[in-house]
Amino acid sequence: MPPKQDTSQLAPSERTRLKRAYKRGDYNLQMIYDILAAMPLCHVSYVLDGKPVVTPTLQWREGNRVYWHGSAASRLIRKSEGADVCMAVSILDGMVMARSAFHHSANYRSAMLFGKASKIEDDAAKEASLKYMMDELFPGRWETLRPMLAKERKATTVLTMPINEASAKIRTGPPVDDEEDYSLPIWAGVIPLTTNVDVIENDPRNLDGMIAPENLKSFKIG
Amino acid sequence: MPPKQDTSQLAPSERTRLKRAYKRGDYNLQMIYDILAAMPLCHVSYVLDGKPVVTPTLQWREGNRVYWHGSAASRLIRKSEGADVCMAVSILDGMVMARSAFHHSANYRSAMLFGKASKIEDDAAKEASLKYMMDELFPGRWETLRPMLAKERKATTVLTMPINEASAKIRTGPPVDDEEDYSLPIWAGVIPLTTNVDVIENDPRNLDGMIAPENLKSFKIG
Repeated sequence: MPPKQDTSQLAPSERTRLKRAYKRGDYNLQMIYDILAAMPLCHVSYVLDGKPVVTPTLQWREGNRVYWHGSAASRLIRKSEGADVCMAVSILDGMVMARSAFHHSANYRSAMLFGKASKIEDDAAKEASLKYMMDELFPGRWETLRPMLAKERKATTVLTMPINEASAKIRTGPPVDDEEDYSLPIWAGVIPLTTNVDVIENDPRNLDGMIAPENLKSFKIG
Repeated sequence: MPPKQDTSQLAPSERTRLKRAYKRGDYNLQMIYDILAAMPLCHVSYVLDGKPVVTPTLQWREGNRVYWHGSAASRLIRKSEGADVCMAVSILDGMVMARSAFHHSANYRSAMLFGKASKIEDDAAKEASLKYMMDELFPGRWETLRPMLAKERKATTVLTMPINEASAKIRTGPPVDDEEDYSLPIWAGVIPLTTNVDVIENDPRNLDGMIAPENLKSFKIG
């Protein structure tokens, strides 16, 4: 049975309404979920003293919420709790080379999510959420690890927001040139980009006989 | 002769001072330049009606300034002119798997730049800057294209800011575990990630005999 697809559509808000390039945009929840699942790297922006700050971190999704975490001591984690944030998840899929400079473009999948960040206060819920993140990235790994200590849980803040003001933008395919330019003798095309998972490196301090779990070989990204 | 290296150090500001994980951070200009050169994808954040917005776009550097562009009609491009922005350029180099959940991490190179965005007003300077971007990505291509039209120049806004409040953060290498955990029989290591440039795709509407310029095969990213 194929995985259940979420066919819900979000209502566009003033901020997510796609004014430009609207053919590339969508409010389909499954499309947003797929982008979040493909790329753990995200960029979260906050307003700090009236000015914008954006930082890279890793995100994960559970149900209709997105999560990210960081050191409880980090200024940005502390300042963003309860605050408005905007998260972008972007995958650069290719460079699109047209017959004019103007129509050069990029192929990409990107999601933009707006919301108010809240902190998971409950200890058990926090640890469950961190375990969920790891299970998504590296199934089965959590159980093999040295258990999380209370002080580690305390030192980690997990932030979350609902996915209810969000949009996706996707561009695929060849360049789109002005019709009259197609007759010009100019090469056009796409340089496709993918994320390559290279050969896994063992920690030089591994004990003798330790081998990488078989299922890590199926780790994929992008 | 090796390319000239910039050994300048930026002074940390209140915003760029690396309070945490300081061993990973630096204000060395060349390190920041190298990250910008390795990854054209960037995330630019602005404050819009008091709330943060972050969008992906492509950046390029000329001298000690960073540039990005967009449609002159785009709300974000219009609103960010003259405004405070923060730009992040991030490359995810690997997943770092430790013996405890807490010490799992990522290998990455990231740069964070703060400044006020200004618009290139002069037409010739604007076009020269767009040409510079293309020359950086695809050397020699600009001259082969249908020349830029005045209306295209007009429809494009180029924004720029000086690189004088910025920092880089880099993590490399194996996990760093608590010393007592190294004796545990848990596999640890790194899943390295790189950006793969796949086989170039020709536009199906290319004229007969058009072949991709040889130097595109050396396009690299990441």
